[in-house]
Amino acid sequence: MMTNPNQKRIRDYGIMIGTLPTGPLNRISDVSGVKVGHVTLRQGSVQTGVTAILPHGGNCFKEKVAASSYVINGFGKTIGTIQIEELGTIETPILLTNTLSVGTVAEGLVNYMLQENEEIGLTTGTVNAVVAECNDGYLNDIRGLHVKKEHVREAITQAKAEFEEGAVGAGTGMSCFGLKGGIGSASRRVEHEDYMIGCLVLSNFGQKEDLLLAGQPIGQWILEEEEERGEQESDKGSIIIVLATDLPLSDRQLKRVAKRATVGLSRTGSYIGHGSGDIVIAFSTANKVPHSPSVAISQQSVFHDHYLDSVFRAAGEAVEESILNSMVTATTIIGRDGHQRKSLQEYLPTYVSKFRYSSLF
Amino acid sequence: MMTNPNQKRIRDYGIMIGTLPTGPLNRISDVSGVKVGHVTLRQGSVQTGVTAILPHGGNCFKEKVAASSYVINGFGKTIGTIQIEELGTIETPILLTNTLSVGTVAEGLVNYMLQENEEIGLTTGTVNAVVAECNDGYLNDIRGLHVKKEHVREAITQAKAEFEEGAVGAGTGMSCFGLKGGIGSASRRVEHEDYMIGCLVLSNFGQKEDLLLAGQPIGQWILEEEEERGEQESDKGSIIIVLATDLPLSDRQLKRVAKRATVGLSRTGSYIGHGSGDIVIAFSTANKVPHSPSVAISQQSVFHDHYLDSVFRAAGEAVEESILNSMVTATTIIGRDGHQRKSLQEYLPTYVSKFRYSSLF
Amino acid sequence: MMTNPNQKRIRDYGIMIGTLPTGPLNRISDVSGVKVGHVTLRQGSVQTGVTAILPHGGNCFKEKVAASSYVINGFGKTIGTIQIEELGTIETPILLTNTLSVGTVAEGLVNYMLQENEEIGLTTGTVNAVVAECNDGYLNDIRGLHVKKEHVREAITQAKAEFEEGAVGAGTGMSCFGLKGGIGSASRRVEHEDYMIGCLVLSNFGQKEDLLLAGQPIGQWILEEEEERGEQESDKGSIIIVLATDLPLSDRQLKRVAKRATVGLSRTGSYIGHGSGDIVIAFSTANKVPHSPSVAISQQSVFHDHYLDSVFRAAGEAVEESILNSMVTATTIIGRDGHQRKSLQEYLPTYVSKFRYSSLF
Amino acid sequence: MMTNPNQKRIRDYGIMIGTLPTGPLNRISDVSGVKVGHVTLRQGSVQTGVTAILPHGGNCFKEKVAASSYVINGFGKTIGTIQIEELGTIETPILLTNTLSVGTVAEGLVNYMLQENEEIGLTTGTVNAVVAECNDGYLNDIRGLHVKKEHVREAITQAKAEFEEGAVGAGTGMSCFGLKGGIGSASRRVEHEDYMIGCLVLSNFGQKEDLLLAGQPIGQWILEEEEERGEQESDKGSIIIVLATDLPLSDRQLKRVAKRATVGLSRTGSYIGHGSGDIVIAFSTANKVPHSPSVAISQQSVFHDHYLDSVFRAAGEAVEESILNSMVTATTIIGRDGHQRKSLQEYLPTYVSKFRYSSLF
Repeated sequence: MMTNPNQKRIRDYGIMIGTLPTGPLNRISDVSGVKVGHVTLRQGSVQTGVTAILPHGGNCFKEKVAASSYVINGFGKTIGTIQIEELGTIETPILLTNTLSVGTVAEGLVNYMLQENEEIGLTTGTVNAVVAECNDGYLNDIRGLHVKKEHVREAITQAKAEFEEGAVGAGTGMSCFGLKGGIGSASRRVEHEDYMIGCLVLSNFGQKEDLLLAGQPIGQWILEEEEERGEQESDKGSIIIVLATDLPLSDRQLKRVAKRATVGLSRTGSYIGHGSGDIVIAFSTANKVPHSPSVAISQQSVFHDHYLDSVFRAAGEAVEESILNSMVTATTIIGRDGHQRKSLQEYLPTYVSKFRYSSLF
Repeated sequence: MMTNPNQKRIRDYGIMIGTLPTGPLNRISDVSGVKVGHVTLRQGSVQTGVTAILPHGGNCFKEKVAASSYVINGFGKTIGTIQIEELGTIETPILLTNTLSVGTVAEGLVNYMLQENEEIGLTTGTVNAVVAECNDGYLNDIRGLHVKKEHVREAITQAKAEFEEGAVGAGTGMSCFGLKGGIGSASRRVEHEDYMIGCLVLSNFGQKEDLLLAGQPIGQWILEEEEERGEQESDKGSIIIVLATDLPLSDRQLKRVAKRATVGLSRTGSYIGHGSGDIVIAFSTANKVPHSPSVAISQQSVFHDHYLDSVFRAAGEAVEESILNSMVTATTIIGRDGHQRKSLQEYLPTYVSKFRYSSLF
Repeated sequence: MMTNPNQKRIRDYGIMIGTLPTGPLNRISDVSGVKVGHVTLRQGSVQTGVTAILPHGGNCFKEKVAASSYVINGFGKTIGTIQIEELGTIETPILLTNTLSVGTVAEGLVNYMLQENEEIGLTTGTVNAVVAECNDGYLNDIRGLHVKKEHVREAITQAKAEFEEGAVGAGTGMSCFGLKGGIGSASRRVEHEDYMIGCLVLSNFGQKEDLLLAGQPIGQWILEEEEERGEQESDKGSIIIVLATDLPLSDRQLKRVAKRATVGLSRTGSYIGHGSGDIVIAFSTANKVPHSPSVAISQQSVFHDHYLDSVFRAAGEAVEESILNSMVTATTIIGRDGHQRKSLQEYLPTYVSKFRYSSLF
Repeated sequence: MMTNPNQKRIRDYGIMIGTLPTGPLNRISDVSGVKVGHVTLRQGSVQTGVTAILPHGGNCFKEKVAASSYVINGFGKTIGTIQIEELGTIETPILLTNTLSVGTVAEGLVNYMLQENEEIGLTTGTVNAVVAECNDGYLNDIRGLHVKKEHVREAITQAKAEFEEGAVGAGTGMSCFGLKGGIGSASRRVEHEDYMIGCLVLSNFGQKEDLLLAGQPIGQWILEEEEERGEQESDKGSIIIVLATDLPLSDRQLKRVAKRATVGLSRTGSYIGHGSGDIVIAFSTANKVPHSPSVAISQQSVFHDHYLDSVFRAAGEAVEESILNSMVTATTIIGRDGHQRKSLQEYLPTYVSKFRYSSLF
């Protein structure tokens, strides 16, 4: 899997989300050390995969990152959040896959962690695997359980800063607003400081009629012009949202940031459907937490809550743009039983001209 | 305080939010039995008041309503939520006022409940007063503590279904997106059923530049055309959102509904600022919970989660429209130290013509 | 695995916990329909297994049970709780195993559910596997990952009402208060009603010095009489507590019951150590929730909170007795690297005579 | 109100709780800077009051303390916890009073804070009053609302390190296990470090039959010897537990400590009744949080979770001993309608000799 330099993203269509500047890659990997790797399984009715997000380049078990999670809507099967909430740390790469493969990927991640850390389960405790998921069953033969535990190591090994988006990795078979969804990313530079907020989403939610593009009801426009309006589908999807920062935020502050993901999600048109597993995981690379501390009390950088406003704004913007990037970079896919999800790419050029160019974009 | 038949609301400008039909009043009082009363204190630097929301026409202590609360952002001083969360019920009217008067209003509400219920504190337990607040200190001399406990009974007594919105009651001195905020309301009929979701907000949040009107960046437009751009203010505000329904929802389901308030809030332009106390209270009038049950086990109507999607959509739409109604019904106010908040009314006619009339409105 | 009629439990030593009457089996299976099955892997350094708890005799996916979970301390890897919290239901058997095998067991449970339900992932959504764990690494070669996904079906198939306790199933390699722990169970009849609270624990926590038996410091006594006092171990363990009832409790009420597990846990001597994953899952078999409802609104039995006191008392007592039963039924085990955990059986006869026989026992 | 040097506490009867050493005062004020003040209203049917806990000697609004709260059971009316949870800080003294006077005391506390801080509500935001309560209606004419807002300043002004316990301040009219309850305190030195955990409780819960004293069923003994056994009362009470430390704990860690209060509570015999408002507030004086920070990022001491075990043990022990101290220092009170609560003092000498003196005491 190589980064595709030809992937045109939402900004490349002249559509700007929010007002804050992006990082150099406009990806989660603008947070130094964060890398993303994919394994893509695409053949006929097999449309699925695995995506790994590495919080930093070192050993996450030995040097944990401060973290928090937030459940926007909990019709989902993400694992690992109980310990994240108790201890405020993540100690493995974050893995994404399809819903029914969470167990397999967890097993693969445990295997990987055991191999990398000989002391786990022997001279120290166990390890908390973090695996999140969406249901790609519309395009993918999800009952076939095509993801194997070996794919975990493969995804982790392939991780890099310049990763592909769209219908790749865990995003291969995902749907979003009745179109093709998948992996999307974006970043924002925090006002007045040289710090970064990065976001990666696995998008798989929404109904076509609800899609908003920078506030414009583009989903309605698409529906109006489709010759045959298909059966109305209910929103059974989900979204996984991973937020990263190099600001020295505490777990409590990271939860506050995570809650702002709802802002970006809402602005793309989601009403947060009943059947959706909308989960946010946020981490900071700033203050690593050692597995084996040498002293009980140490010194650490802390960020005063008073200055969080631009961080919150950055999170909302990055989530909104990540979702749009996940859609516009995803190609049209035909999968299981001939089910098809068209790419937003096929509609965007037509509608861009309909946009009113206001100060927002 | 009379209902002002001349209050022009956001729909009266031709701007439609969402797709679901409203109730007959397009107010929270479309949920049968819900009434709202105001006490407005407006004189010079005193710009504050009290608003009471009555869940039903009977005795709330003897017949409690199923309820839940949700904290969008907890920089706020709302009281009563601990017991709401534990027992899933509300047993008093819900009172709204300014931040520093919560104690006074709580005392007044306890007085009222003691007078109405001779057994409280004598032959039965105590009572859980529910009081929510926003900080009206920009327009109001909030340090003056002008709200008195007697205002509680007055607001409750004046409650009716056709209540005024805007700069009245607790909304008298509130600001929203750098303009005048206050009390706003709206309702939605749930798809395929004759049930109602009603909303009332006390709006007091946001920065002018962020205001969105049906997706359009009207806040940006206003800023561009103001001759002198004032100092940028941080978002120190708050919003209280009360949702009511006659659907037989459980406390867990009401919390799910309450969480969807963030959707409507986000679509008006909020990034959910650090300094904001954004609190949602949701209740259902369907299954009253008796204070003194005659039997341990009884029969009750329950709503299957499978059908919640249109309820969630209704909640998001009602919140968004309530916020806009709170702004457009509020008149321009000059208060403490000559501070002024202009009404959205003053801008709306100009900008309505700038709107792109898409299928959304 | 057969029920061992010779398993002597804590009451058989004349030690009574609490004041409420037990059910006929004094097990979780006194709640009608609940069954428990074990797969035990015991050979040399392999000391582990799988335990399955079936909420009822039918298809849990088609007829879900009302449920809630509560995290006493979250240094644990239990999966499935996000959806339990959102929807208030459990739709699979509850599986217990060792910490590093959660992924494998989740995969096995998904396999089992797919085989039993052809519509999952095809014409309906996915399924939420519930798997809880403790770390048996002291006695078991946990890095060896000896649990296989096939063990899930085997444990489910073997489930019955009269199940074995102690060093069996997931409890095979567990330690408790420096002695042997594992599976334990108890039940209580709720006052004045013919309803039942049942409990099953997987015990794996505590330090020897802290063990209390009906309030008596038996752990201290054991330490005093041991010739060589070993190195002080920190509390790295965990406990999984499953509570069942046939009372028509809502998810909110089940969470209230689940929180009372801490009472029973505390009375056995736990201080709820940092390294402990202490998780409670509570369910009610009374109001089944259909996967495919025929109507949105139906009638259901509800229990008024006013009558919960004896339910809470029953939960605390059942948890305390289950923990003691898990210890006293477990045999001495020598496992990995010659590590040994002695059975409480070896000490109890000596100390029973030291007890002061007060009105409590 | 003076400290009574003759107040005999539970240790003075030879009964030791736990194994950790106490601080020099064995009070919450062993945490340097913490002070406690009472206003006691005692005359006939008026048996109530106000207690103030000052987190440190300076201005709490300008220098906030890290804090968290935990709801053991939420049938209570404590205010201020929403903001504590969001921001992880407390910015006022913590006030305790009777349930129906929470509003009045909140008003008094706001008055006090406005007088001490001229900028509140004018050039800065508002203030989050923290007020907790129990229902003293059995002994006190709680409907009479005898607490006045002026009592808040009086209690704060009288605060000192060597404060009285028992039937004083907010504890004047409280009942515990069918005997007299009230204010109690204790402290523990954390192992291997010169840090302190202090506790203060306002006890008002439990039924006589359940009282445990260092594991012994003393409540049963008392019942057996009472000539006339009164009507069985249900547990309608509550307990407020305040924990303080000078360890540099984060809000997340303070919540973990707060949850351990349940251990101490359970060991005194509580089953955590339905009608109980059992609320814990924990704060650390180590890292003050400035109201007006000069920089966004600063350095701070942090404590690694790995070392928390002795802190947890200390919290459990201090809570258990505080509850016993609240009972044994409280004198017998006759209040409203001739209702009487006897002091544990009247029973203790008799039963101490019944105790089995094991290594625990």
